[in-house]
This record gives sequence, C-alpha cells and structure tokens, in this order.
Amino acid sequence: MIDPSPARPVHLDPLTPLQFLERAAFVYREKAAVRYGQTTLTYPQLYARVRRFARALTAAGIEPGDRVAVLLPNIPPMLEAHFGVPLARAVLVAINTRLLADEITYILQHSGSKLLIYDAEYAAVAAQVRATLPLLRCVAYDDSGAVHADMDYEALLAAASEEPIAFDTVDEDATISINYTSGTTGRPKGVMYTYRGAFLNALGEALETGLDATSNYLWTLPMFHCNGWCFPWGVTAMGATHVMLRKIDPALIWRLIAEEGVTHFNGAPTVLTALVNDPSARRVARPLTVATAGAPPSPRIIRQMEELGAEIVHVYGLTETYGPITVCAKQPEWERLSDSERAQLKSRQGVGYVSAGNVIRVVEPSEDGVLRDVPRDGETLGEIVMRGNNVMKGYYEDPAASARAFAGGWFHSGDLAVWHPDGYVEIRDRGKDIIISGGENISTQQVEKVVVEHPAVLEVAVVAIPDERWGEVPKAFVTLRSGSEVSARELELFCRERLPGFKVPKAFEFCDLPKTSTGKIQKFVLREREWSGRERRVN
Amino acid sequence: MIDPSPARPVHLDPLTPLQFLERAAFVYREKAAVRYGQTTLTYPQLYARVRRFARALTAAGIEPGDRVAVLLPNIPPMLEAHFGVPLARAVLVAINTRLLADEITYILQHSGSKLLIYDAEYAAVAAQVRATLPLLRCVAYDDSGAVHADMDYEALLAAASEEPIAFDTVDEDATISINYTSGTTGRPKGVMYTYRGAFLNALGEALETGLDATSNYLWTLPMFHCNGWCFPWGVTAMGATHVMLRKIDPALIWRLIAEEGVTHFNGAPTVLTALVNDPSARRVARPLTVATAGAPPSPRIIRQMEELGAEIVHVYGLTETYGPITVCAKQPEWERLSDSERAQLKSRQGVGYVSAGNVIRVVEPSEDGVLRDVPRDGETLGEIVMRGNNVMKGYYEDPAASARAFAGGWFHSGDLAVWHPDGYVEIRDRGKDIIISGGENISTQQVEKVVVEHPAVLEVAVVAIPDERWGEVPKAFVTLRSGSEVSARELELFCRERLPGFKVPKAFEFCDLPKTSTGKIQKFVLREREWSGRERRVN
Repeated sequence: MIDPSPARPVHLDPLTPLQFLERAAFVYREKAAVRYGQTTLTYPQLYARVRRFARALTAAGIEPGDRVAVLLPNIPPMLEAHFGVPLARAVLVAINTRLLADEITYILQHSGSKLLIYDAEYAAVAAQVRATLPLLRCVAYDDSGAVHADMDYEALLAAASEEPIAFDTVDEDATISINYTSGTTGRPKGVMYTYRGAFLNALGEALETGLDATSNYLWTLPMFHCNGWCFPWGVTAMGATHVMLRKIDPALIWRLIAEEGVTHFNGAPTVLTALVNDPSARRVARPLTVATAGAPPSPRIIRQMEELGAEIVHVYGLTETYGPITVCAKQPEWERLSDSERAQLKSRQGVGYVSAGNVIRVVEPSEDGVLRDVPRDGETLGEIVMRGNNVMKGYYEDPAASARAFAGGWFHSGDLAVWHPDGYVEIRDRGKDIIISGGENISTQQVEKVVVEHPAVLEVAVVAIPDERWGEVPKAFVTLRSGSEVSARELELFCRERLPGFKVPKAFEFCDLPKTSTGKIQKFVLREREWSGRERRVN
Repeated sequence: MIDPSPARPVHLDPLTPLQFLERAAFVYREKAAVRYGQTTLTYPQLYARVRRFARALTAAGIEPGDRVAVLLPNIPPMLEAHFGVPLARAVLVAINTRLLADEITYILQHSGSKLLIYDAEYAAVAAQVRATLPLLRCVAYDDSGAVHADMDYEALLAAASEEPIAFDTVDEDATISINYTSGTTGRPKGVMYTYRGAFLNALGEALETGLDATSNYLWTLPMFHCNGWCFPWGVTAMGATHVMLRKIDPALIWRLIAEEGVTHFNGAPTVLTALVNDPSARRVARPLTVATAGAPPSPRIIRQMEELGAEIVHVYGLTETYGPITVCAKQPEWERLSDSERAQLKSRQGVGYVSAGNVIRVVEPSEDGVLRDVPRDGETLGEIVMRGNNVMKGYYEDPAASARAFAGGWFHSGDLAVWHPDGYVEIRDRGKDIIISGGENISTQQVEKVVVEHPAVLEVAVVAIPDERWGEVPKAFVTLRSGSEVSARELELFCRERLPGFKVPKAFEFCDLPKTSTGKIQKFVLREREWSGRERRVN
C-alpha cells in the first residue's frame, strides 16, 4: 500500500513493481491471477498470500536489505517470492534449480543469503547444501503436503497476518534481486536489479509482447532465469493470468495452450523445436505470441511456429540486461517478402526495446577505452554494448568485475555482432564461439543456420576443433529428426552448395546436444571434449 | 541522442520522451510518422525537422528553461513543437486556440514566454496580442505558403542544421511543459509536467489503449489540451502513425477513418455524439479504439459507438493529471450482462491506470487536514484525490495555489464522486454542478443519463435553478435529434418513471448547448443565465 500521508512530493512515487500487484488485486477481484493444476488463486488471494509471506519473513528476522534465496520451479510460491521478498524489503536471490550442491552453496555464501526456500523436488540437493552450511535456515514447500524437517512454507503463511504493508518508502534505485549468471567459465557473478529497472522492464515486456488483461501467460521460461525476464511483474501489471508449469513437457504444454487459452509464452529456440516436433503439436485456436531468445531462432523454426498459428517475437539480452533488451521489430514492408526472406530478417536480434530506447551499439575492439561504432555494413564484426534503465546496477560485491563490464560507460555484452544498414544488430557469435580458420572469421551461427535447413536435421551445434593446417576448423554436432537419415557426406554436399568452402564443417558427428537448464546448447561442453589437453586462444 | 560517454551510472538514463522519437526514427526508416492531407513525413524526416526546430530556437536566443508558446491546431508543427521545444531544453506552453486575445496575453505574460509560434488561422488574434505585447517575438506557420510579417516557421527550419543534439543530460524531474487550465472561474493556472511524468504517462496511454507499431492515431483531441493526453509522445514511442486533423469535421473524420485505416482516436462524448449522428457514420472496417473523457459517456453513446464497431475506453483525469489517470477497466464477467447493464458500468470513471497505480481515493470533507476515505458504498459523496507520477509537479509561479491543491499530500481534484464496492469511482458532479434541493443532493449527471435515454434527445445539460421553496431545483436544457419532436411534458413523464420525484427537472428548455473548445458542455454559462443577479452558494 501507499502510505496515506507520505513525506515526499505529491508527484513523485518510487517506481516499484509492488504497485502492480496492489492495483491488480484492487481492480480484478474475481479474476484468476494464478492457475496451477486444480488450483486457482484470484488476485486478492495472491496478494494476501504475498503479504503473509512478507510478514513471515520479517517475523523470521529478515531485515531490509537481507538476501532471501529460493530454489523453486515455476509454481505459485516462486511467483509469490517475486513480490513477497521485496515487500519485506529483502533482496530475492532466485537460484537455477539445475545447479549442483557446490554451485548452490557458493551462491548462498557469496550472496550471504539468510534463508533458503526450496521445493521438495530439490530436498536432496538442499540436504547436501545444509551439510556445508549448517546454520542456513530453510523453508520447504511440498505440494503433496508431506511434512519436512524444515519449516513448512504453507504453515509459515498460515501463521502470519495479512495486514497491509506500505511499499512506497523504498528508494527506486535499491536492489530488488540478485541473479547469478550461469558462468560457463569462472565463478558465477551476482547481477543486481533495481526496483526502477524491474518496473520499467516489466512494462517494456508488456508493450513488446502485447500483454493485456485478457492474456493468459504460460510459464515455460524459468523464473529463476533473469527473474523470468520481469514477466512475474509484467503479467501481474496487466492483470493477466499466470499459468504455472513445474517442468517443460511438450505434451502438457500443448494441452495447457488449448485448455487454458494461452496467449503468450517465452522460450529458447530449443524449446520451440521440442514443441513443433511433439506429436501433440496442433494449430492454436487463440492468437499466440511466443517471445524467443537465447539463440537466434532459425528461419525454419520461425516458419514452423507460424504454420501452427503462433507469432514469433525474437528478442535478445543477457542476465545483465534484465533478460531482453532488443527486439527484432517487424517492418511493414517485410509482409511483401517471401516466407524465407522474412524469416531470415526475423532471425536478427534487432533494435532496443521501446522502454530501453536507442542504447544498443556495436563497437570496435578498443585499446584506448574510447568506444567507436563499427560501420553499419552488415559485415564488420564488433561487440554489442548497451546502457540505461535496462542494464544492471552492477555485480554484487564485485566492484572489479563491475568496472570491467562497464568500461567506457557502457555494459560490454561479450557478444560479437554485425550492425546492418537498417540499424538491426545480428549476433554472429558469443565471443568464445567464433572460429578463426586460417585467419578468416567463421560465424558458427551462420553455419548452423545452413545445416538446420536440411530436412533430416532437428538441431545442430557448430564449434571450432583444432586443425594442424588452419589452426581451427568447424565441426558440426547434429541431432537428426526421429525416423530421418542422412550421411555426413550428404550434409557436407548440402553445405557446399550454400557456403564458401572454408566455412563448410570438416567433420559431422551425430549425437544428442548438451543443454543448460534454460535450453541453451552448451557449446563449451562440446569444445572442451574436442580440445582436451590442448589450449585454445580466445580473442 | 545519448551522449556516447555520459558521466552518470551505466544503469541510469533520465526518463524523457525524446528517447521515443530517436528510437522511432532509428527503427522505422520508411514508415509514415505523420499523415496530413497530401503530406507524409517518415520518422527520420520528422526527427530531422525537430532537430532543425530545436536548433532554430537556440539560434533565436532561447535558452534552457525558457518558455516557448504555441497557438497551433493539430498540424505537423504542433507535433514538432512537442519534441523540438524540449530538445532545445525549453518549456512548451501550448495555448488553447479558442481563447480570446486577453486570455492569451495573460498566459504569455504569466508564463514569461519569449516566443510565440502561431498558425495563420490565428493571425488576427496574434495581431491583437502583439498590440499589448509589442516585444513578443512571433513565428508564423502558414500551410498556404503565404508570406507573413513575422518570421516564417518553414524558413527558420530550412536555415537550421539537423545535426544531432544530446538530450540525456536533462534532470527527469525538470519541467517539460506548462498547460494552462481552462479556469471557468478566476485566472488560468499553469500546470507543470515533468520529463519523467511525460515518459511514464505516454507509455501508460499506449498500454491502456493498446497502441502498437501498426496503429494509426487520428488527432481529434486537441494537442493543446493536456499535451494531447501525452499521445504525441505515446504514439511516437510505439512507432505508430499520427493522422493530423486541423479541425473537428465529422464527415472528414469518417473519411479519414476509412482511408487512413484509423485504429485509435480520443474525444469528449460530445464529439462522439456528433460522429454517430453524422450522415457519413458507417461501420468501421479495422478494429477502432476510442478513449473518451471530459464527461461520462452515456450508456446510449457507448451502445451507438459499439454498434459501429468501435470499442470505447472510458478514462478520466484533469489537466493536473496529464489528462487521464483512471480507466474504467473492463471485467470479464461484464460480458454476461445485458448491453444496457454493461454500458451503465462502463460509464463509471473507474480505477487508476496501470502506470499510475492504486493512487486514487475518494475522501470525506476534512476540517483537520487528515484525509479519510468515504465508505465504498456507491452512495456517499466525497472528493476524488490522487498522487504519484501521474500528477503535476505544481502550478507555475503559484506556490499558494499549489499548496492548496496538494493539501494533506494528495492532489484535490474538486470532483465529487462515490466509491463503489468494486473499487471503481463514479463522478456524481464537478463540485459546482451538484444541486442541493431541500437539503438533498441531486447529481445532475444522474439526471442527464436518464433524459438522454429518450429517443428524441440528442444532448442534455442539467443545472440548478433558483427555487423559492427548495432553494434550488434541476432544470434540463435539451437539444433534440434533427427531425425528432417531444414535449416538455412527455420528457417529464419519461423522467418520473425513472427517477425519484425530487430529481425530476422542474423545467425543460429546448436549445443548442454552449461548449468549450474541447467539446465540454459549459454548464456555468447556463447557470449564470439562470442565476443572474442572484447569488448561489457553492459548498
């Protein structure tokens, strides 16, 4: 609630996403805020649970600024944590549920979290963590109702009061959450989000994906990932319905899309690939908007999703940018192009969000600290940098890493891209992914886009492997569509027709691809296997 | 443009609507920003003109913080002023074009405007103003190309450079514009808007009315009115198209809706009445969203607009709240009601905007300065108060009036309303409009809603007239639909069936209704006529 007689000027209230929940609970008295299996929570019910949650935290000794960690799938308590923790003026640390005990322990220690709330599904890893951190206080949530040794989430809520709590005395630049990067090398870093950033990005997502009060949002994207791109706050802002999902299950997703009238979901292209290839795939009845990121969607997956009636919004960002900061905004004249030309344009990362503004650049490598734009020629490779309200406040307790990331007054993404004459950026590779073969740059993403066009191919990852003559050359790891067959030789010929010779993979291997919990292909796993014992220099 | 090496933190850029134009010009290179008769401006062309405008102002000696006044209809220079004046770091004073010379002179003097930009249509009044203010510098715009004695707008732009100008060093709490209230009593007051408020409210309008990059917005609402409810900035933010309109002309509006594929416009209910009763009225081909405010739309006009295929969004606000601050948010269960029940619910003012939050209250009259909510019973009359980022910074150079308006930490609207159990506010009357008859309150709006349901009635205004026995009683001024006939006696009987006796008008007069330039009925004109020579106490 807003303090009825605040001391600050009448025209200045802090930007905070807690305002969204209060308004939704006030305006939408009967509407489902949450649907989870047989459970429905209205907005007033959700808000009452959030107030109990916040009061339970305070009763447990959590003070303003304390960190509260959660290890939860996309179930109601995870949404409640996105409001309840800030309502207690604490800082939310949402941990990737696929991490191993020692990684979780590191995050809990580094963030100095006072409390961990975990789902019974992760009871075993929580027990391992506690073996190392015997003083960590834990709260367990179990939707089977089983009793755990730790404090029970529902019992805590039941014991707390749901009296209103003022949320408007916060500084909008205060930290609302810390999200640890997945960190393929080195220890994870804690990315700090602010109340102001969360508010603006939540509305930005609503604008870019067209959320409104009639929307039903399906939780395919993990909320532990960049706070679910701020959708916990954005969906609530619009008074739309959160449809919960404990885990990615293509058949269940198709059933929920039909039964819950899903209008929006987000997911990596690998999630979309799993969906279009599932036997339950069917044309959708209601307009469906799917925001995708993590890797550029191939023209093929864009076409396949569109054939099922979904509209693909291609966005791009990093943990350091609250999730997406660019969108491949559609141009009216694209409608006149062929499906394949249009899909090609849509696979670019695009331009800044409306809410972010024109604060994305591609810059040359710099020796003197001054950032210079690359020419907008669609060819010159540079690094994507960005700034503004869509960028993190810094890395928690790591001023050195923050200073490095913010060199020259812009956040350095580490992503290599070209800048097209129309102003759209297109990632050619994450820094480590680029292949330098005989002095020539090869974009692994460009090669992947070609290979995946072959009808037998389901997914592909291209990485550099060592080569005596060229230093390194591309190799393709390929997963075939079930029931399809193709030889390495056939794929090579397919590529030769479509790529210059030096970009054609020198080897093809047929296998399943290693993926992160958010569905990103882990190229570094493939690379490490190929380079074991040898050192690869990275530019 | 954003300074490439700003000194402030990487994660904090000031909120400014100039960001919207820069992004739109960068992203939409070919798209029409402006359509005006045979003229089309793309976004890059609009932005280039805005930069020339800003540089011309600076060259003319306008310094940061100086006020620049405009007397312009909804034509391209008026849109350009909404970006060009702030880009020069000056403060925009958009003047109601219907005002008389002495009112305009007062505003120019009070605001200390250094420059006036006027359209040739207002050359006569501009000449009168200059007779009083011989030192005022003037710029004339004439789309016929005629030469005026004053500086010519197009010549100024042509002489200026279109080099980029940094806009990100502004304080987001600085004043971007001053809008003078229409002030039916006393001198107009200058309402100050900030960059932050303009940014947030522009996005708020886009969210509430569903603007996106494919929208075509028709400029029926004067931009001099609350800066067009921030739509100059909101339509631009989304990269939508502004369709200009020099004056309200129902036949032209219907033609533009069809020819330009209009998807959105805003207007007072009187504008909607003129539209539905025009012979050119026809069902729209594209979905059309019409936001209406200024007076509650009658259930009848809501039904009529819906029958033509338009969706009505009923909003409410004042100059002091950047235009709208509440919306009558639709509830899913309303779909199950009859048209007439639904229209009744939609005629309420509603709840705070998503961007504004839950910061609207209805409070009791207070002796001790403490604001207490009225019960949410749909019956108890109180005053609407509001606060937050959707509320003005204060009245320009009038700290006493600002302090009065902000008593108790909330802005006092002067509008009398009830608060319904579902949280929606419903205005029963502007303070002066309420009728107190024999000690009983009569809402003139309630009586009007009944009278306008009679099929012969086009429009109605109900005001208090003096009465020996009751102190005051209601009288109805009625405009009939062309070709319709009804007697005062028949209308009285019609009301008796639908209202308690003391609320039935004691007199009916058939006439045209006096209106403001924004289409609001001027009840005070009718009241003054009836009360001339007598004093009416106002609570």
